[in-house]
Amino acid sequence: MIRVVLVEPEGEYNVGFVARLCKNFDIDELYIVNPKCNIVNAESFSAKGRDILENALIVNSFDDAIKGVELKIATSSIADTKGDILRKAIRPWELNDIIGGKKVALIFGRESVGLTREEIAKSDFLLYIPASKLYPTLNLSHAVGIVLYELWKTKDSRKMKVTS
Amino acid sequence: MIRVVLVEPEGEYNVGFVARLCKNFDIDELYIVNPKCNIVNAESFSAKGRDILENALIVNSFDDAIKGVELKIATSSIADTKGDILRKAIRPWELNDIIGGKKVALIFGRESVGLTREEIAKSDFLLYIPASKLYPTLNLSHAVGIVLYELWKTKDSRKMKVTS
Ligand SMILES: Nc1ncnc2c1ncn2[C@@H]1O[C@H](CSCC[C@H](N)C(=O)O)[C@@H](O)[C@H]1O
Ligand SMILES: Nc1ncnc2c1ncn2[C@@H]1O[C@H](CSCC[C@H](N)C(=O)O)[C@@H](O)[C@H]1O
Ligand SMILES: Nc1ncnc2c1ncn2[C@@H]1O[C@H](CSCC[C@H](N)C(=O)O)[C@@H](O)[C@H]1O
Repeated sequence: MIRVVLVEPEGEYNVGFVARLCKNFDIDELYIVNPKCNIVNAESFSAKGRDILENALIVNSFDDAIKGVELKIATSSIADTKGDILRKAIRPWELNDIIGGKKVALIFGRESVGLTREEIAKSDFLLYIPASKLYPTLNLSHAVGIVLYELWKTKDSRKMKVTS
Repeated sequence: MIRVVLVEPEGEYNVGFVARLCKNFDIDELYIVNPKCNIVNAESFSAKGRDILENALIVNSFDDAIKGVELKIATSSIADTKGDILRKAIRPWELNDIIGGKKVALIFGRESVGLTREEIAKSDFLLYIPASKLYPTLNLSHAVGIVLYELWKTKDSRKMKVTS
């Protein structure tokens, strides 16, 4: 079971696009912590992911969003900072091995300031999408898309192995 | 050399996000064929990819956008349709082997109707990002992000091999 968690998202287009991506990649649950934008306006960006948006759980705190989950994966564009243990990060393609059959939350931060150190500290792993050293900060929903694609890919190849 | 080509994009947010993604993943060139939206408004979505947007080449035709390129990769959410040779598609992770050191255009279609059969026929390969059978149609800029990430990843791991 995969839950996508958006923490205090600020852009309605991002919320809409994430709902669409959840539909594109068969994600089970979308949780939104304390949205800072209009969720209703997000609909125009969700396309056929509209039902995902309508069924999204809006919660008041980070802790509520990770309830009932066995594994919490935080994400950040700042990783592997020297001497900072909070910043030791895994890569997207390592996710599937870590996840196994567990109930997992994939946690994405605010467009403006990402996740707080406290939120990262509450998570089991930090995930970093490798990108240009000069500018590794992806837009929120594009980061979500890449992570969900990597999960799907491995799931897909696993399925292919099973049926062949 | 990698060129990203957007054919008649309709959403300014998509154009802006693609410029940002080009910066995130060190893409050399952005070409836009006959944009159907306001490129100036796209800026607010480009973040630190603003210079990419300012330097993007706006051209009038598909043929102008693929000039000087050795390999043309079209993309579509409709792939491997039975009996349709135009629709036999490669997957993102196969890209790097095909590309080698060539001058390549990665070609993305209109939000509303994708690429025409004529445009696909002019390309050397069709690329499909695997996603849910029920809804494999990604938003334009999210499809771009996933393809650029896959290219970057292999480039990255190649770099790591070289330095280790
Ligand atoms: N390269 C990358 N790897 C992993 N997650 C990323 C990423 N780029 C963006 N994200 C995700 O997108 C969210 C918004 S980007 C946040 C940027 C903010 N300026 C900061 O300092 O963190 C991040 O919190 C993270 O969830
Ligand atoms: N060493 C530290 N110890 C405790 N709190 C810290 C800290 N460094 C930063 N913080 C707190 O954590 C907040 C967010 S830090 C933001 C991290 C960044 N956006 C990312 O995702 O990578 C800061 O505003 C500060 O209040
Ligand atoms: N699963 C996928 N694989 C590859 N490219 C995709 C994709 N989903 C979207 N795209 C890209 O995003 C563009 C806009 S989506 C176009 C959808 C249109 N209804 C159609 O029938 O094609 C596509 O032209 C393609 O370039």
